[in-house]
Amino acid sequence: MLIHVPQAPTGRLSDAWRFCVGTGRFDLALRRDYQDSLALAQREIGFRYIRGHGLLCDPVGVYRPYEYRGQRGVRYAFGYVDQVLDAYLELGIRPFVELGFMPAALASGDQTVFWWRGNVTPPRDHSEWAALVRSTVEHLVDRYGLDEVRGWPIEVWNEPNLDLFWPGADQDAYHRLYQVTAHAVKDVDASLQVGGPSLAPGGEPGWLERFAEFTSANGVPVDFVSRHAYTSGPAQQVPFGVYQTLAPATDLLDQFAAPRRELAGTALAGVPVHITEYNSSYRPDNPIHDTALQAAYLAPVVAAGGDLVDSFSYWTFCDVFEEAGVPTTLFHGGFGLLTHRQVKKPAYHLYAFLARMGEAVLARGEDHLVTRDGAGRVAVLAWAPVDVTGREPANRHTLRLSVPVAGRAAFLLRSTVDEQRGNAWAAWCEMGSPASPRPAQLDALREAAEPAREHRQLPVLDGRVELELTLARHEVTLVELTPVTEQAPQWWDEARLLGGSGGGGE
Amino acid sequence: MLIHVPQAPTGRLSDAWRFCVGTGRFDLALRRDYQDSLALAQREIGFRYIRGHGLLCDPVGVYRPYEYRGQRGVRYAFGYVDQVLDAYLELGIRPFVELGFMPAALASGDQTVFWWRGNVTPPRDHSEWAALVRSTVEHLVDRYGLDEVRGWPIEVWNEPNLDLFWPGADQDAYHRLYQVTAHAVKDVDASLQVGGPSLAPGGEPGWLERFAEFTSANGVPVDFVSRHAYTSGPAQQVPFGVYQTLAPATDLLDQFAAPRRELAGTALAGVPVHITEYNSSYRPDNPIHDTALQAAYLAPVVAAGGDLVDSFSYWTFCDVFEEAGVPTTLFHGGFGLLTHRQVKKPAYHLYAFLARMGEAVLARGEDHLVTRDGAGRVAVLAWAPVDVTGREPANRHTLRLSVPVAGRAAFLLRSTVDEQRGNAWAAWCEMGSPASPRPAQLDALREAAEPAREHRQLPVLDGRVELELTLARHEVTLVELTPVTEQAPQWWDEARLLGGSGGGGE
Amino acid sequence: MLIHVPQAPTGRLSDAWRFCVGTGRFDLALRRDYQDSLALAQREIGFRYIRGHGLLCDPVGVYRPYEYRGQRGVRYAFGYVDQVLDAYLELGIRPFVELGFMPAALASGDQTVFWWRGNVTPPRDHSEWAALVRSTVEHLVDRYGLDEVRGWPIEVWNEPNLDLFWPGADQDAYHRLYQVTAHAVKDVDASLQVGGPSLAPGGEPGWLERFAEFTSANGVPVDFVSRHAYTSGPAQQVPFGVYQTLAPATDLLDQFAAPRRELAGTALAGVPVHITEYNSSYRPDNPIHDTALQAAYLAPVVAAGGDLVDSFSYWTFCDVFEEAGVPTTLFHGGFGLLTHRQVKKPAYHLYAFLARMGEAVLARGEDHLVTRDGAGRVAVLAWAPVDVTGREPANRHTLRLSVPVAGRAAFLLRSTVDEQRGNAWAAWCEMGSPASPRPAQLDALREAAEPAREHRQLPVLDGRVELELTLARHEVTLVELTPVTEQAPQWWDEARLLGGSGGGGE
Amino acid sequence: MLIHVPQAPTGRLSDAWRFCVGTGRFDLALRRDYQDSLALAQREIGFRYIRGHGLLCDPVGVYRPYEYRGQRGVRYAFGYVDQVLDAYLELGIRPFVELGFMPAALASGDQTVFWWRGNVTPPRDHSEWAALVRSTVEHLVDRYGLDEVRGWPIEVWNEPNLDLFWPGADQDAYHRLYQVTAHAVKDVDASLQVGGPSLAPGGEPGWLERFAEFTSANGVPVDFVSRHAYTSGPAQQVPFGVYQTLAPATDLLDQFAAPRRELAGTALAGVPVHITEYNSSYRPDNPIHDTALQAAYLAPVVAAGGDLVDSFSYWTFCDVFEEAGVPTTLFHGGFGLLTHRQVKKPAYHLYAFLARMGEAVLARGEDHLVTRDGAGRVAVLAWAPVDVTGREPANRHTLRLSVPVAGRAAFLLRSTVDEQRGNAWAAWCEMGSPASPRPAQLDALREAAEPAREHRQLPVLDGRVELELTLARHEVTLVELTPVTEQAPQWWDEARLLGGSGGGGE
Repeated sequence: MLIHVPQAPTGRLSDAWRFCVGTGRFDLALRRDYQDSLALAQREIGFRYIRGHGLLCDPVGVYRPYEYRGQRGVRYAFGYVDQVLDAYLELGIRPFVELGFMPAALASGDQTVFWWRGNVTPPRDHSEWAALVRSTVEHLVDRYGLDEVRGWPIEVWNEPNLDLFWPGADQDAYHRLYQVTAHAVKDVDASLQVGGPSLAPGGEPGWLERFAEFTSANGVPVDFVSRHAYTSGPAQQVPFGVYQTLAPATDLLDQFAAPRRELAGTALAGVPVHITEYNSSYRPDNPIHDTALQAAYLAPVVAAGGDLVDSFSYWTFCDVFEEAGVPTTLFHGGFGLLTHRQVKKPAYHLYAFLARMGEAVLARGEDHLVTRDGAGRVAVLAWAPVDVTGREPANRHTLRLSVPVAGRAAFLLRSTVDEQRGNAWAAWCEMGSPASPRPAQLDALREAAEPAREHRQLPVLDGRVELELTLARHEVTLVELTPVTEQAPQWWDEARLLGGSGGGGE
Repeated sequence: MLIHVPQAPTGRLSDAWRFCVGTGRFDLALRRDYQDSLALAQREIGFRYIRGHGLLCDPVGVYRPYEYRGQRGVRYAFGYVDQVLDAYLELGIRPFVELGFMPAALASGDQTVFWWRGNVTPPRDHSEWAALVRSTVEHLVDRYGLDEVRGWPIEVWNEPNLDLFWPGADQDAYHRLYQVTAHAVKDVDASLQVGGPSLAPGGEPGWLERFAEFTSANGVPVDFVSRHAYTSGPAQQVPFGVYQTLAPATDLLDQFAAPRRELAGTALAGVPVHITEYNSSYRPDNPIHDTALQAAYLAPVVAAGGDLVDSFSYWTFCDVFEEAGVPTTLFHGGFGLLTHRQVKKPAYHLYAFLARMGEAVLARGEDHLVTRDGAGRVAVLAWAPVDVTGREPANRHTLRLSVPVAGRAAFLLRSTVDEQRGNAWAAWCEMGSPASPRPAQLDALREAAEPAREHRQLPVLDGRVELELTLARHEVTLVELTPVTEQAPQWWDEARLLGGSGGGGE
Repeated sequence: MLIHVPQAPTGRLSDAWRFCVGTGRFDLALRRDYQDSLALAQREIGFRYIRGHGLLCDPVGVYRPYEYRGQRGVRYAFGYVDQVLDAYLELGIRPFVELGFMPAALASGDQTVFWWRGNVTPPRDHSEWAALVRSTVEHLVDRYGLDEVRGWPIEVWNEPNLDLFWPGADQDAYHRLYQVTAHAVKDVDASLQVGGPSLAPGGEPGWLERFAEFTSANGVPVDFVSRHAYTSGPAQQVPFGVYQTLAPATDLLDQFAAPRRELAGTALAGVPVHITEYNSSYRPDNPIHDTALQAAYLAPVVAAGGDLVDSFSYWTFCDVFEEAGVPTTLFHGGFGLLTHRQVKKPAYHLYAFLARMGEAVLARGEDHLVTRDGAGRVAVLAWAPVDVTGREPANRHTLRLSVPVAGRAAFLLRSTVDEQRGNAWAAWCEMGSPASPRPAQLDALREAAEPAREHRQLPVLDGRVELELTLARHEVTLVELTPVTEQAPQWWDEARLLGGSGGGGE
Repeated sequence: MLIHVPQAPTGRLSDAWRFCVGTGRFDLALRRDYQDSLALAQREIGFRYIRGHGLLCDPVGVYRPYEYRGQRGVRYAFGYVDQVLDAYLELGIRPFVELGFMPAALASGDQTVFWWRGNVTPPRDHSEWAALVRSTVEHLVDRYGLDEVRGWPIEVWNEPNLDLFWPGADQDAYHRLYQVTAHAVKDVDASLQVGGPSLAPGGEPGWLERFAEFTSANGVPVDFVSRHAYTSGPAQQVPFGVYQTLAPATDLLDQFAAPRRELAGTALAGVPVHITEYNSSYRPDNPIHDTALQAAYLAPVVAAGGDLVDSFSYWTFCDVFEEAGVPTTLFHGGFGLLTHRQVKKPAYHLYAFLARMGEAVLARGEDHLVTRDGAGRVAVLAWAPVDVTGREPANRHTLRLSVPVAGRAAFLLRSTVDEQRGNAWAAWCEMGSPASPRPAQLDALREAAEPAREHRQLPVLDGRVELELTLARHEVTLVELTPVTEQAPQWWDEARLLGGSGGGGE
């Protein structure tokens, strides 16, 4: 079938895919490897916001009660917060603030989550919590200015509908926390944006509707709603890792669509919806994240997600993470688009390819997205659809497109990632899966991680270029077609290169 | 009194002062702020080795037992270790390896030290510990090469003569640990250097002698011995800080001298001695570390310490530390030569001044050190001796020196740090002690942190320059005298600058 | 006399002082030393535009006639142009385009200017010149976008009222060139800005009026007018240098004022006026440029110039220049704010101090300028007025100011440059005027080049701080007063630093 | 035919290929683009020395006669020299000093060479020339130290056997120059190395023999001899370019071999021989330099050249050059391994591949070179032999090798450059040969310039891997085989990735 890409745009490519990206816990952002990875991602992808856990946890050191001469007092210490946020802003990214988890000294219990033991219990004193929130937000406004901070969404807690993150997944307790927190934020300035409830998929049904009901009934401000989306099945544990089944990628889009569906008819019907985490597997030790399959699996999701939500945040931009402990090997199934030390995974390239798409959407289908930018460059993103049973053949997918391009010829540059090409994970396995690669191995991995490139000139006939793309297993490919303005002088004749008399016979 | 500095050197300035520097726990070295500070210190000071705690603690993730199909196994994971050591070597510094503390999964108890809870109990299985040590050292040799690692001293544990770091300060238990560890190191290669016992000052007397006795009696290898030195009194606690009395600086030199004195006549009489930690106060929250007093107090120690030991390691090069938790303010009495974000403290300049001294020592006294380098530049380091009762007057100290310099004139450059000049801490107090300074404040602090500079040309008469130096309270000053080769042309006449007819009357 | 600085601003500080800066010839911008200097100046000063000669000269290689098979043709080659402009934009500065001088192959004669031999003759064919201009401007618009290039002023030629730059200083010939050029620019896009006539001081009188007359009579577009300003007398030559008398600084301001005065009543009465070059001496080998006198001399000019013109462009930001050949010594009286290798001259600091002034002007006088910024920081720029006969005493000038500051205390930071402090030139002379300083000497010069800093806390009484400033010979000083928010905790007591019982007697 | 690569090395790979590289004229080294290119080449290739023309020419400004009060004098100004040499040393490369050409003020005539007009006439006063040489060398020794400068070869003039570079190619005049110069160098220090005569190919026969005769007869020191090698035929001129025939690559090796052959039996029989320039075409505007053919053509030369000479210096490392004027297009047939703005040409990769070869040579043939490094990595460099008539088929060349590798498996990484892959020039032509590419085009060119990478794991059978390499037209390929130490854990099972039960059936 020939896909006839129309000349006139059908719409604009939404920025929802790059609006936000996920990160490991807050204090990991102090690390150089983390910042090196973020700098790379910002240079080649350019996310707008970044969201992760742990801002208020003890390793960040914000909440600091003390006693002096028999009196209790509290200091709020923002040294590390400022170091991280200064670095973010310097790298051209802003925080999507998540308020949580609980400082041990303010906690009502000792339930913790993750290897790094974030305390997930409610505050033992809600007014102290409110003071902590207020002081934190005031500090941000003081240091970064209200104009800036007004643009930062502030989300209350993480996945309170799971017992793992909130004892008993107690919705009333969450509502109380949300109410106190939202008011504390708005006390600082009414124009600040606060939202929640940061739902995990798979919690008890009806949460979002009840959240809408509670907040509207009680006049609690909600500037956006948020939930998460994952498609993996139960974890089959092995040491330092898991295997999981995957639902089809369309399930992710269904999850994206859920909040608007669920809120229809409620007081929150119109508010922005952010998917503040999404990925295939929700585990930081599932090798799927390192593979080409991951890129091909997510391609239709990133191409279409913007129709459904205001943002969907890839969880996470790099492998500096530690929820399941310190990794024992370079590739370990981490969430990152980048490994430690900046080796690019296939999913990184999916995002880097998207960053090279134009603003005007010309066509979109189940295996392709076609755009054009202001300079007339047409970009075709194409992918081999994934069968989650893993039964795709090696060279199974072909597309034929007729693409409108200006001028008389086009320069084609094709960048490809698949099971071998642009695939550092494959190279790493072939190397013997070195736990901590030596410098020469890292160099080889970085080389193996670059997409394969192909280029040629194509004639433009009747304003169109005809493309036939054959995709390998789990391939994601970007084809860029740039109109050629021929500047070679009349005397240029390749046939004379070796001193011969030339094609023109001079 | 005129100090007549002789023309002929009296000896060479030992490198003991720069042989090693201390650092916060191992995984803090992953941080960007830490590495930025280390890069600065290496550029302007240039230490040879770096030593700190925590290599084998859980946050570094080396020791990783697991079960699979009913069998126990262990993985050793060196990803973070390699990240840190790669960074060190790139910055021109090498590890002075400290083996400790105990991975929780290998510990015999749950006693921990510090806010970051390092487990300080003996291994529950000495052969597993030996395997861990062997694997670690083997990995280092494999990645960095035996030629390189052979130069890295390997120290067994930290301050086992304090109950804080070793339950009951049990010397027999330490001897057992040392023996097992030293043999495990030598199993990898007999040329590797292992040592201990890393004694704290103020432990029970006789430790070192007994260590010598045990090791020689049992044929346990000891390539060097190590101890620490501090001179502060008991901590008078306030929130987030302490005040302490200080013993005179000569006490530090006495502590440096102790190991050689104590080992005289034992089998260890000749081995190298490293002071693997030293400072005034042993507390990471004593404001003394931030002051000019600290620099003036330590000046005679760094000038003379090399006579007594092979190295003495300033504890620590930067404030990224966390033994007492996350700091609540930029200046907080941390050990660092540099604060977070690279504000230089007066003690930093003491070291930076030392790095500008020449190799040939011409003179040394209780308030000065005079050297010459290969290019003929004479450097005078002078300081106002400190009264530990704090009763020095503002402008109390004067030196007069007659200094031999080649040529007919000398260029003098004087760099000074005292209670006001080159003193970011003073500026910070004057600013109102901002907990987390804003960028403009950080800029001002960095400017305030630079030494005052003064320069002029001095005539050299009979091969000598006469200097009269008046030192302010707690001043440390560096005077550099460089022989002048006059290259100004004959037609240069400052008097003609504004078009006048000139001094020479042209 | 006490200067009572009012609380309410009297106006805004114009950006005229930083609107533009001068540079050596176009292709020198390809050099790394040049770009390093520009990067430094942009970081600490931040100019908006940069203007220099030589865009169309042969070393840039734009105009490239050829013959092929008996036909003449022309290629326009913009490789170097793009390298330079890309670098400018990357450094946050834009070109103030000067069209000139003449490609040899398009020249009507062989008169050249400068050591680097710029051909200054009219085009031998005005339509070929117009084609060159059009192609050049089209290329800029094509590469950088019309929105961007529309903001770049385009000036026609340089100092055509001097025979040195335009044979016979032939005004009619210039008018013809201007007419052709202005139309060629506007042919590309009518919104582009073109202007002239870039007059030198000291040419024949009446030029500007005649230019206004010609352009209005002939409908020739003029978007701005430009002239230059210098105040030095005739050159008293010595090898590789000159001495010159100087007129008082007020003469510079008179020259700034001239265009508006001369154009009053003409058709060009309202157009923007740019002083596209100014300095004390017009010679690139007058040591005056390297001195503190230069900074003090220009201080009243930069403080007041914005009243008179839209911009005045310091000629030049760095010593990479070569109009009088390759310099024979590091300091050689070059125009630069910076020497080769980024040693800062006193005039650099004058500009860096200005960059730290606030937007609101509170007071201005013959020896001071006082501003406040949005954060409440008050900045006082003060200078010791210069006597151009050089008869100022060493410590001659005192100011007393009563300055309004918010809060209860102020942090004062004073930065000073004078005959010794912040004066690398003085240090260089003292060093023996090394022609090409060794690395260690360059380090010392960079240290000597930094302003002296002084800081303290001052009480604010009745909303005011009283300042008494004593200025040394040729001193320029910046005093910044920042309101203090005291954050020191109640338990902080300096008296307890050494473990004493403290001032408050705990 | 199967090439059986032996296990035991046949010798060591000489460093002659990387001992030296050529550069455009001395002052071009001041440019940022030049230094950026050099930094890249040093990082990925790592040359030892760099040689080019123009050290003593007027744009560098060394020789500066003046008059003062009726007396003549000379200043020697080394500001630019030092800037360049400091940059070289910082980039890890040293000067191979070429003394020339003639300062205009010291010249006996006005014959010049190149667009940049280097004066090539003998000195009008040999003792002034000797003073200039002595002062220059003294300055180098003074600034960089005798130990350092002793390692820098010093070559007298360039190609004096061509009238283009030395009027009349007058050998007697050259002998006089050489004699005076060599003695001036040795006057500074007898251990410095001086040599010549830097012969062009194609001059009059017998030069070298006469040079040997003259120098030995007159006791003139000669520490090395030098000549150049090129293989292109006469230039067929087109605007801004030429076409030329090429002799087979073996001609280059013949030219390399010539000096030893010619000097056999003379007094210079044993001295080191440096080919201080070589390339295919001697023209800086022959497109051949930009092609894959160039890389394949030179591959056998760089693989074997070290047998014949002590060094052969690729002329030149980057396109910043200007002998034929400013280039009019990015690709213009320049000598560079890199274009302006660091686009890599195929020949760059040939050198980068060589830099990845091991020290031990295992095999060498007309289409391959096989080495092993200390870590056991075997590298195969293979190329498709070039037919200088250009009649090679597209896929014409196949190699089969049996390669000894340790262990049970090998990781293969193949990097390839040919007519399409790793070929920015091809991409540039396809883009329409943009004269000055826009930023997005430069990015695409840099991507197109990277070699294609391929990787897989191969079984090692009986200590050997069997390789079959098919080479495309003008392909140069590097195959690296690294022994695999398998670290994948027993529980790793790719078949379980999607949650299936796995290959092993758990």
